Amino acid sequence: MHKEKLEGILRDVAGGKKSVHDALVLLKSLPFENLGFANVDTHRHLRCGCPEVIFCQRKTPKQVSKIAEIILRNGSNLLATRADKLHFSAIKKINKKAEYNEQARAVTVRIKDEPLKKGVIMVVTAGTSDIPVAEEARVTAEMMNCPVKTLYDVGVAGIHRLLSHSREIQAARAVIVVAGMEGALASVVGGLVDKPVVAVPTSVGYGASFNGIAPLLTMLNSCTPNVAVVNIDNGFGAGYFAALLTD
Amino acid sequence: MHKEKLEGILRDVAGGKKSVHDALVLLKSLPFENLGFANVDTHRHLRCGCPEVIFCQRKTPKQVSKIAEIILRNGSNLLATRADKLHFSAIKKINKKAEYNEQARAVTVRIKDEPLKKGVIMVVTAGTSDIPVAEEARVTAEMMNCPVKTLYDVGVAGIHRLLSHSREIQAARAVIVVAGMEGALASVVGGLVDKPVVAVPTSVGYGASFNGIAPLLTMLNSCTPNVAVVNIDNGFGAGYFAALLTD
Amino acid sequence: MHKEKLEGILRDVAGGKKSVHDALVLLKSLPFENLGFANVDTHRHLRCGCPEVIFCQRKTPKQVSKIAEIILRNGSNLLATRADKLHFSAIKKINKKAEYNEQARAVTVRIKDEPLKKGVIMVVTAGTSDIPVAEEARVTAEMMNCPVKTLYDVGVAGIHRLLSHSREIQAARAVIVVAGMEGALASVVGGLVDKPVVAVPTSVGYGASFNGIAPLLTMLNSCTPNVAVVNIDNGFGAGYFAALLTD
Amino acid sequence: MHKEKLEGILRDVAGGKKSVHDALVLLKSLPFENLGFANVDTHRHLRCGCPEVIFCQRKTPKQVSKIAEIILRNGSNLLATRADKLHFSAIKKINKKAEYNEQARAVTVRIKDEPLKKGVIMVVTAGTSDIPVAEEARVTAEMMNCPVKTLYDVGVAGIHRLLSHSREIQAARAVIVVAGMEGALASVVGGLVDKPVVAVPTSVGYGASFNGIAPLLTMLNSCTPNVAVVNIDNGFGAGYFAALLTD
Amino acid sequence: MHKEKLEGILRDVAGGKKSVHDALVLLKSLPFENLGFANVDTHRHLRCGCPEVIFCQRKTPKQVSKIAEIILRNGSNLLATRADKLHFSAIKKINKKAEYNEQARAVTVRIKDEPLKKGVIMVVTAGTSDIPVAEEARVTAEMMNCPVKTLYDVGVAGIHRLLSHSREIQAARAVIVVAGMEGALASVVGGLVDKPVVAVPTSVGYGASFNGIAPLLTMLNSCTPNVAVVNIDNGFGAGYFAALLTD
Amino acid sequence: MHKEKLEGILRDVAGGKKSVHDALVLLKSLPFENLGFANVDTHRHLRCGCPEVIFCQRKTPKQVSKIAEIILRNGSNLLATRADKLHFSAIKKINKKAEYNEQARAVTVRIKDEPLKKGVIMVVTAGTSDIPVAEEARVTAEMMNCPVKTLYDVGVAGIHRLLSHSREIQAARAVIVVAGMEGALASVVGGLVDKPVVAVPTSVGYGASFNGIAPLLTMLNSCTPNVAVVNIDNGFGAGYFAALLTD
Amino acid sequence: MHKEKLEGILRDVAGGKKSVHDALVLLKSLPFENLGFANVDTHRHLRCGCPEVIFCQRKTPKQVSKIAEIILRNGSNLLATRADKLHFSAIKKINKKAEYNEQARAVTVRIKDEPLKKGVIMVVTAGTSDIPVAEEARVTAEMMNCPVKTLYDVGVAGIHRLLSHSREIQAARAVIVVAGMEGALASVVGGLVDKPVVAVPTSVGYGASFNGIAPLLTMLNSCTPNVAVVNIDNGFGAGYFAALLTD
Amino acid sequence: MHKEKLEGILRDVAGGKKSVHDALVLLKSLPFENLGFANVDTHRHLRCGCPEVIFCQRKTPKQVSKIAEIILRNGSNLLATRADKLHFSAIKKINKKAEYNEQARAVTVRIKDEPLKKGVIMVVTAGTSDIPVAEEARVTAEMMNCPVKTLYDVGVAGIHRLLSHSREIQAARAVIVVAGMEGALASVVGGLVDKPVVAVPTSVGYGASFNGIAPLLTMLNSCTPNVAVVNIDNGFGAGYFAALLTD
Repeated sequence: MHKEKLEGILRDVAGGKKSVHDALVLLKSLPFENLGFANVDTHRHLRCGCPEVIFCQRKTPKQVSKIAEIILRNGSNLLATRADKLHFSAIKKINKKAEYNEQARAVTVRIKDEPLKKGVIMVVTAGTSDIPVAEEARVTAEMMNCPVKTLYDVGVAGIHRLLSHSREIQAARAVIVVAGMEGALASVVGGLVDKPVVAVPTSVGYGASFNGIAPLLTMLNSCTPNVAVVNIDNGFGAGYFAALLTD
Repeated sequence: MHKEKLEGILRDVAGGKKSVHDALVLLKSLPFENLGFANVDTHRHLRCGCPEVIFCQRKTPKQVSKIAEIILRNGSNLLATRADKLHFSAIKKINKKAEYNEQARAVTVRIKDEPLKKGVIMVVTAGTSDIPVAEEARVTAEMMNCPVKTLYDVGVAGIHRLLSHSREIQAARAVIVVAGMEGALASVVGGLVDKPVVAVPTSVGYGASFNGIAPLLTMLNSCTPNVAVVNIDNGFGAGYFAALLTD
Repeated sequence: MHKEKLEGILRDVAGGKKSVHDALVLLKSLPFENLGFANVDTHRHLRCGCPEVIFCQRKTPKQVSKIAEIILRNGSNLLATRADKLHFSAIKKINKKAEYNEQARAVTVRIKDEPLKKGVIMVVTAGTSDIPVAEEARVTAEMMNCPVKTLYDVGVAGIHRLLSHSREIQAARAVIVVAGMEGALASVVGGLVDKPVVAVPTSVGYGASFNGIAPLLTMLNSCTPNVAVVNIDNGFGAGYFAALLTD
Repeated sequence: MHKEKLEGILRDVAGGKKSVHDALVLLKSLPFENLGFANVDTHRHLRCGCPEVIFCQRKTPKQVSKIAEIILRNGSNLLATRADKLHFSAIKKINKKAEYNEQARAVTVRIKDEPLKKGVIMVVTAGTSDIPVAEEARVTAEMMNCPVKTLYDVGVAGIHRLLSHSREIQAARAVIVVAGMEGALASVVGGLVDKPVVAVPTSVGYGASFNGIAPLLTMLNSCTPNVAVVNIDNGFGAGYFAALLTD
Repeated sequence: MHKEKLEGILRDVAGGKKSVHDALVLLKSLPFENLGFANVDTHRHLRCGCPEVIFCQRKTPKQVSKIAEIILRNGSNLLATRADKLHFSAIKKINKKAEYNEQARAVTVRIKDEPLKKGVIMVVTAGTSDIPVAEEARVTAEMMNCPVKTLYDVGVAGIHRLLSHSREIQAARAVIVVAGMEGALASVVGGLVDKPVVAVPTSVGYGASFNGIAPLLTMLNSCTPNVAVVNIDNGFGAGYFAALLTD
Repeated sequence: MHKEKLEGILRDVAGGKKSVHDALVLLKSLPFENLGFANVDTHRHLRCGCPEVIFCQRKTPKQVSKIAEIILRNGSNLLATRADKLHFSAIKKINKKAEYNEQARAVTVRIKDEPLKKGVIMVVTAGTSDIPVAEEARVTAEMMNCPVKTLYDVGVAGIHRLLSHSREIQAARAVIVVAGMEGALASVVGGLVDKPVVAVPTSVGYGASFNGIAPLLTMLNSCTPNVAVVNIDNGFGAGYFAALLTD
Repeated sequence: MHKEKLEGILRDVAGGKKSVHDALVLLKSLPFENLGFANVDTHRHLRCGCPEVIFCQRKTPKQVSKIAEIILRNGSNLLATRADKLHFSAIKKINKKAEYNEQARAVTVRIKDEPLKKGVIMVVTAGTSDIPVAEEARVTAEMMNCPVKTLYDVGVAGIHRLLSHSREIQAARAVIVVAGMEGALASVVGGLVDKPVVAVPTSVGYGASFNGIAPLLTMLNSCTPNVAVVNIDNGFGAGYFAALLTD
Repeated sequence: MHKEKLEGILRDVAGGKKSVHDALVLLKSLPFENLGFANVDTHRHLRCGCPEVIFCQRKTPKQVSKIAEIILRNGSNLLATRADKLHFSAIKKINKKAEYNEQARAVTVRIKDEPLKKGVIMVVTAGTSDIPVAEEARVTAEMMNCPVKTLYDVGVAGIHRLLSHSREIQAARAVIVVAGMEGALASVVGGLVDKPVVAVPTSVGYGASFNGIAPLLTMLNSCTPNVAVVNIDNGFGAGYFAALLTD
């Protein structure tokens, strides 16, 4: 219940326009979200500047464009993840500003500009096959107004590639490490920086990687305490979480 | 190599006290950590204000007190995790400021005061059995100079207990959710706040909780994107990670 | 053996028409189901008013229509689950009353009306992707003459959506909770009501949901004792089980 | 908030004793559970007649007796599960009516009599080693005022033992099947009755039973749709759930 | 119902001593096992010559001796598995013929002699640590009147040890292969003989043997089709099963 | 070495045609299989009367027909498993006696008649979906000259169907139980008979059957000791193993 | 930093052309790889004579040919693994020396000849389905200038086939054992030789081989200590590792 | 058969002292190991210079000392692994040269000196808790006459510690990497050297390390191809395998 509504009812009671009984009935029958609680939801979006998000997988282009229309009408920026080209076309028809990042499988529509945050997020991948997940993280963080830098294909097999960039990594406010196979990169990066590292295991791998279980366990058991983990291939979650860490 | 050492060598070369060849040999033969790289490690601790940490499990009281002595001599605060009473006694003998949090199984020695950070960390548990892990997180974060609030035993079985505190939770800079059994609390808290939630699965549970696998999977699959996960029962990691998120 | 048969034999013995030896041989050689035991099966269907069910997966349309014909000839209502459009067409040819619920992938043929039970079953889903499984539960329960209400897409990420309907949920005789991803909804609903909650984990999810293992474990470990679990994606089982709970 | 409290505030506003502003502040600052929501919790216990429950595992006798004291003072019956003899002694000191079921590891204190429900719950076990879990279920259901019958050691290895009791099983309102090893009993019983079967896998078994995973999977995959499953060794949950099914 | 009982009732009917109605009631009220069905159970023991078996684990010496007393009074030989010395003492007190095989943890009491079968069972182990399980198989098979030969510690690491005995192995009617670690012996023996091989994985092993899962999987995947598998460490089952194969 | 070869060498030595040294060299350099050892392989097939088997999966029709040609030329009967229609056509071209069992996916070519064994093998399935695996077992056993009876779709959900055939099952020399889902049928059949039961878990099932892991564990943990298990869906192995048990 | 660069800076300092401060800044700002560290990478390839490798899976023919061009321009031999025919065509266009091993799915381009090593690598497979993985190992080892012998289809089901070649196997410097199903071959070969055995589990198998987990566990638990294991189906890794063992 | 025996038989045949038939019978009935085959076993030990090994776990001190006595009498050096102090005392009584490495839990008795190999084995651990496993590897390799260097506690959390020793590591002939927790060290070391890396996962870790599964999977999935893996905690195997790689 918006403060005004509640205030209105109370005023009516004070002014004798409403009996105590009627007020009671009114208060009790109001849907829960009107009791001030549901506002949290809206406030969240306002405060953290995150866009409305549509998860396209298992949704038809029609369903997606319908939801997109409502969101854009409300003046919010839009991020559609796990979107294929058909999803993109459907959104593009509604708003020409729609852009498609094919690697990230993400559609973005930016209809209002918001100030950029200061803290840079560094997105690092172990291999080239991890890039799609990394790009999803990048797009998500950018839609949440974070400056993002990327450093791809710096796996531990040739650790000098990673180390030669250690200063850049250390300059970031938060680091997202995306790695499949054995996922060792998260621990190594964790040891290089004094910032939070968000680790994303990917299903990239062969044999006993078991679609991401191997790097998932690696990252959960990281010997450096500045590493936390999100779900396998969950680039969106990593980008979202990292964006919450920056100011 | 400390800046001064490197500077010294260069000065000797400039002043003709050392030949180019000798300087070259000197630089090459220096152990790697002296080449400016190892300083990262030290800098990290200075910057994030985290204390030196001893992981006591599998170490004898003697071993622990030996390491503690060196750390304290260097003027650093000390945190000893997974410490039993014998570990505590051994540290206490070295420094009378040593305190023991029995639930957290943590010894702390605070020999220098550091300014408190502003952002509050809220530590929430589902049940009373999760409290030891939560306390480890609390002690860790406090040793990293974060103000910490706790809210224990607010599991989803009686969700009103949690909801009645939603405003306090929303006011925190970061939330640590500690839960065993089915671990659903992380998702629910994730839905209540627009802040990063660090989820700690615990091995508290019976039957098919499989020593923490059930809540671990629950938390990794959280439907709210502001949740990241650390290892089972890893209160220290959660406290450390959350402390990195605050300013 | 029907009572009459047994009685007949005994009468023949009493009347001297059958020797003891012949009676003995007769009794011993009778197939087991004739000893009154197999009737259980038939009685069950009569008592609980559940329709005959065909599980269509791995069956050809021809096979399905053949079984359907026998069932309908016996005057029983029919439920065919996991049915595709071809299965539906095959049944439709036999009986025009056949209806198809595409989401539930269920064909129903109601050829006799039975009195509706009183207790309402509430079917709740966490997300929109869980709806097909929920619909299978709904159709099943309705074919067993239960009034069913549905409440879809009220996952714990936005818990106020669920809470605003808590009174409706509490009014039900039994609740079916259908949830994938982390499956936390079952515990939350379990905490809201004092009625049995039948939890159905779904294979909806990504990465470490492992095709439904994550919500399955979550639900088995539910911290509220009024939750019992059926197999992953088993909407039929949930609907059937819940229908047995109502009067 | 109890209806009277809310009414009181509104009356004060109506009567001019409280300004609208003060009422507003009052309403907003009230903890959530006072807004009528938390009552659910209390109502639940009243309606289903279930006793207050203390889960003793990981609690000291002192802690248990303290909680027990509060519960009993409120006039509620008490059930303490996973209780050892020390827990029992501690409760016995507080109230002499305390009784201990050693097999079930349960303490019960019945300080008020409640009317018995009509529907009988039948508790069936596969082997003698499953009896402790079955007894926990029995005690729980009895404390929730259900008449309970038991049929122990009727596993499928000698199926005639089970079948000779089929009529008694069929007469029950709900059946609890407790089985370890391969857990096949749940399916067999499910095929015998047209009532809900609550299946409890136990950790009784050897080798590849993996502490209850084998019977758990067996029961989840039961080919009869009237079976739902609770956690491994969770006799309490099974008894509680079954009691909710009876009238 | 023993044939005589049934005959008696029929005779009474024939002789007019019992009315048809009374006979009907009698037949119906008889417990199921009396209707000829339960005899299977007894017949089984007579035909296969297997002794009565007590599984001692989780039973007290008192409980064991009580069951033993009944069995021996019935004139049956006795096998008690997973028995410790206390169980043995308890049985010994009842019957002095009781013998204890410490490795097999088996007590045997042979009170009647039965003719030896012809087909030899060969029990083979990979290592010395597998011997206790093998001995349990040997004792079981011997109590079922099978001649048994053993060949211990012939694992594939030194395959010549095994091969030098291939003719003896080939002469057996059935082979029991007991192996932990990687369990490869079952496949190798399976390739050497044209007889059924009963494979018993043992929990002997280290690290990734996972208490017997490794040899269990090895044996299930055996590339020779004459291998079937029993549960981990289940020497009793292997001996019993193999005894059924011999004449 | 064929007996003749060895004999020839010895004769040459005896007759002075070969020096001891030359004979020694000859014996040592002969490949191992010539030392009489490899004959085992051939003997095995002669003794057990099993046909030559081609495992068609992952082989081209051409490869299969090539192998088939060699086998048939040697006068052996042929069994080709996991064969599709193209494999069948390719074999049919070589020998018109080739027959195809589509359900079993097996091609058989019987070019010589062998005497039928006496002991009947009974193949039992839980559901209709298990029939293909059962048929593979049946065809295999028949090609090994065993009389086979089948009893399909007698799962434990309607246990009377099974029980009404108990006498037939008890009359068999060995029983093959094929079951997916929860696999409980193996234990129930095991309890009915005093003969060896070869259990085949199938990948038929849904959700938490995990492609056959559920029935596999069920069968391994069977509470009746006359059950041994082969690999998931391994009808061929079950038929082969059971055939070895009969005379 | 190349020695010359560092020398240059020091000379400038010695000659007064650069202040100590400027030199310090220069040294600190140099990228890491210039400090002599990154050279390791290049040296490695020179010393071990291994070719540059492209992992083709998930790469387009275009991407592959682009990388191939750079490698070949540098004068290095080329190995492209997991390559399909399109990848091959793309490389063939660049260099006519490209050859394709279809079974191994490997493209090789040998543009410079290198001396052959002495130690022979023996590649052994259990079945014919393991050959593709074995061929990948063979091609890889040959590109690293090792003489390779192969021995295919010598699984333990007919152990004499393997034993008849034991002398050849013993003559090798290292043995690669490639096996699916139960993977027992690694242990048997390990027992035959006193050389390192590199075991490769393959995903060849059915039912409970779980895509290679069964042979993986078998090999890890090998009872012979001269066996080490690489990832499932990782023929490349096995060939590479074995090549490092030879001189 | 020792060469002489075979020669003797042939001589008898040549000299007419034995008929061809008798010789044939003799040759056929000789145990397999006498045919020259079993010598492999002995040759192996001679060639690779490895000592006889006793695996003490599950053996009594008496059993161990008995085996030790035979080995030492044969003039072989002795290594006893997984030995506790009682095992050591028992061996010490037999031979005063016995030495005990408590961390490695290994007893060594060196009664003859053998020439040291040239290639150095470098043993590296991630943490201090991995040292016992590393020591077992070291002792084993030393007993096989390899020079061993160790580098302990250089995990990836502080990667500079490792890198500062990279030249020493690169100088080794083979590297053993011992790591628990996330096991990332193997990949990092693999990337630093062009030598074979033998990776040993340890059960050191917490929560989701699952007693070594996490580092095991990490190492199997290593992105560098010069890494092969032995069983969890298998220091002996790693030392043995690495010793086979050196000359």
